[in-house]
Amino acid sequence: MGDLPPLFNPKSVAVIGASDEPTKLGYDVFKNLRKYPHGKVYPINVRREYVQGVKAYRSVKDVPETPDLAVIVVPKRFVKQSLKECGEAGVKAAIIITAGFREAGEAGLKEELELVRIAREYGMRFVGPNCVGVMNVPAGLNATFVMDAKPGYVAFVSQSGALGGAIIYKTVKESIGFSKFVSVGNMADIDFSDLMLYLRDDRDTKAIALYVEGVRDGKRFIEVAEEVVRRKPVIVLKGGRFGKAARAVASHTGSLAGNYRIYEAAFKQSGILEASTIDEMLSMARAFTVPLPRTSGGVVRAAILTNAGGAGVLVSDELERRGVPVADLEPSTIDKLRKVLPPMAAVKNPVDMIASATGEDYYRVTKLLLSDPNVDLVIAACVVPTFAGMTPTEHAEGVVKAWNESGRAKPLLALFMAGEVSAKAREYLEREGVPTYERPEDVASAAEALARQALNEGAWR
Amino acid sequence: MGDLPPLFNPKSVAVIGASDEPTKLGYDVFKNLRKYPHGKVYPINVRREYVQGVKAYRSVKDVPETPDLAVIVVPKRFVKQSLKECGEAGVKAAIIITAGFREAGEAGLKEELELVRIAREYGMRFVGPNCVGVMNVPAGLNATFVMDAKPGYVAFVSQSGALGGAIIYKTVKESIGFSKFVSVGNMADIDFSDLMLYLRDDRDTKAIALYVEGVRDGKRFIEVAEEVVRRKPVIVLKGGRFGKAARAVASHTGSLAGNYRIYEAAFKQSGILEASTIDEMLSMARAFTVPLPRTSGGVVRAAILTNAGGAGVLVSDELERRGVPVADLEPSTIDKLRKVLPPMAAVKNPVDMIASATGEDYYRVTKLLLSDPNVDLVIAACVVPTFAGMTPTEHAEGVVKAWNESGRAKPLLALFMAGEVSAKAREYLEREGVPTYERPEDVASAAEALARQALNEGAWR
Repeated sequence: MGDLPPLFNPKSVAVIGASDEPTKLGYDVFKNLRKYPHGKVYPINVRREYVQGVKAYRSVKDVPETPDLAVIVVPKRFVKQSLKECGEAGVKAAIIITAGFREAGEAGLKEELELVRIAREYGMRFVGPNCVGVMNVPAGLNATFVMDAKPGYVAFVSQSGALGGAIIYKTVKESIGFSKFVSVGNMADIDFSDLMLYLRDDRDTKAIALYVEGVRDGKRFIEVAEEVVRRKPVIVLKGGRFGKAARAVASHTGSLAGNYRIYEAAFKQSGILEASTIDEMLSMARAFTVPLPRTSGGVVRAAILTNAGGAGVLVSDELERRGVPVADLEPSTIDKLRKVLPPMAAVKNPVDMIASATGEDYYRVTKLLLSDPNVDLVIAACVVPTFAGMTPTEHAEGVVKAWNESGRAKPLLALFMAGEVSAKAREYLEREGVPTYERPEDVASAAEALARQALNEGAWR
Repeated sequence: MGDLPPLFNPKSVAVIGASDEPTKLGYDVFKNLRKYPHGKVYPINVRREYVQGVKAYRSVKDVPETPDLAVIVVPKRFVKQSLKECGEAGVKAAIIITAGFREAGEAGLKEELELVRIAREYGMRFVGPNCVGVMNVPAGLNATFVMDAKPGYVAFVSQSGALGGAIIYKTVKESIGFSKFVSVGNMADIDFSDLMLYLRDDRDTKAIALYVEGVRDGKRFIEVAEEVVRRKPVIVLKGGRFGKAARAVASHTGSLAGNYRIYEAAFKQSGILEASTIDEMLSMARAFTVPLPRTSGGVVRAAILTNAGGAGVLVSDELERRGVPVADLEPSTIDKLRKVLPPMAAVKNPVDMIASATGEDYYRVTKLLLSDPNVDLVIAACVVPTFAGMTPTEHAEGVVKAWNESGRAKPLLALFMAGEVSAKAREYLEREGVPTYERPEDVASAAEALARQALNEGAWR
């Protein structure tokens, strides 16, 4: 995939259509890109000598060095000429943000195919058109008109630009991080398959999340996915599954949503993990900072500890619904639990340590569950107490201490449910590499994703 | 239900076990109750003359007036005596927070039945034991040891105390409000049925949400629910649906989870709206600030407007999955939409106004959809743009203006998806009585709840 890196790690960037007017997208794109620390960013504007105080050029061909990457955000009638000039200047990668092509009908499709022809002629690859742009978050590259994402380990590729933008805003608010963000738009050239192959080898990416409305080359998509999932999880949220939503897809990105049952079967067969909501997609993808679980006879058996009975009940419900069995603990584990816990605690899995549980209880019980041979994965659930003088992080510290002492051999997930009250504990856990969730269904979907990916990778070894 | 009001609107309260030590629950309970503006709150403590600076009494019988309500938060061995003294003092309602009764086994069950006997003897009603307490949020009554909930229109009754507490924290963070909160604990006396009947007549409550693990008198529960849902929606989240979760319920609240299929069928038959997650329960319950939709041939047909194609697609998917059809618009509506929207917009439902949509576009399109005879309910979806100089509330203002001009005859729901960016717009919409959501599945579940409740109430009229 030698031709994608300049897209994510350019040594220099030209913004064709960079603007001084805050009502134009070229204003936001240039403003975001100016912060890029690893290369020079040149504004291209036919009418201005300076853009946002930076010397501008009339054409990408006038820039003193050949930019690695060009971001095209000019009105539609200038896109073709701009791309041609990129080719002439020797630019190798482009992002075409401008809309009005395939998604606008027959004439637009013809114009889009013309862009593809130009790119081929000059050996260029491009993302778009009709997209929000691209981010390489750890590298500080934001070639979009939306706010910076937070850094993390999930690469997110979205076929809907505005939805992709909404998810950036949402994840910033919820402290969820991304390694890469790509709004693929109409996928005239670079498509899901190209990106999956690139991201498989990307060291910053531990999981690949895709919002898919429709793919044109389904055969290649599935072949590539089959190969990629043996090394990294691919999580897909499919939009346009039912009735009128499928019709909406056609007018939105000019793709056919296709028969959902066919997609569903193909996802399953190729080892793609299908999510049914945005939160499920993100919850699954965020799980992969922990080791994969051992699989025991094709399943992964979970143990749950909690200080809130209802939380244990809801997590168990969600796990069983998703085919992740709640483990039968060894009798010796149950005996030991009975010794360390108060008489009112429930020592069978889910282990309910009741509301009085301290950090020390979390430490002891996590350790016992991690060392039980019947347990492949542990979920530590906690409603951080604000009463009885407890500190908000002692429970989290107990869990991490036990995980460290066990050599982090088994995956550990955390459900910390008390809103702002648990924010500090969640931050601490995330820093320590423990994926944390606020909702029972989210932590259960993460466990399911780990279990299914363990089977994908196991099948390969 | 003349015997429940002192529980929610006491003229005076005694806290038996009020404490000066922050490690005791009696500390938090008294601290929370001291803020109650509508009556005097007396600390009862056998060893102290003052608690938190307030003159304390050795027994509830020593208080100069008869308290309407007593909150009992003493060690278990003193509960029976404390309740007896309440009876002797003429107290009419009690909340027993202390745990260790039915949920602790055979001996505990016997002690719990003894508490019931005492209450009957003195004509008292009580909540608990083994609970977090009770809140009447608009009245400023917080008879629990957790933080104050935000005021709103949903009454939330939880069979799991700690989970109930977690939901309080969560809703405070997410600005979701409650009218009443009741942690029912072991339901030795006051149970779901009593509370449903009370809340049906409570003017501050528009919807009743229950977290149910198991009910003992299933027949009465269903009979009461059948009656209540003809006036107000009852939304249930059932914990302990599958396998080991059902086992966990038994040790948690001493209830039997029972066969979930039986519960499921009974909920359906009685018109209870079943939610599958906490967020779904809250999303459904929060919908009832808008008028119920007209039902057309047993269904409610939804129209969606959006500035983000993907958002329209995901909402449509979720609606169709839930049996809420996406409406076929009148040809005349489609013609008018074509006139007011740019050529690249999609004028079929979902109406995708594309990212350039302004507040004026939201106003016009909302108005057109509300006046289409094929539309029973409208969902306004929006990814608040942070680019191109738009203001974060103009879209919301357009929607509300159209709704007001239409006389608010049809229900309107909003999906505002951009995290912090849309916070202001969401606040504005909520103030205007429009329920707002951040996730496609949440707004779709709200639409489903309105549709199903319309059938419940229609069946009655």
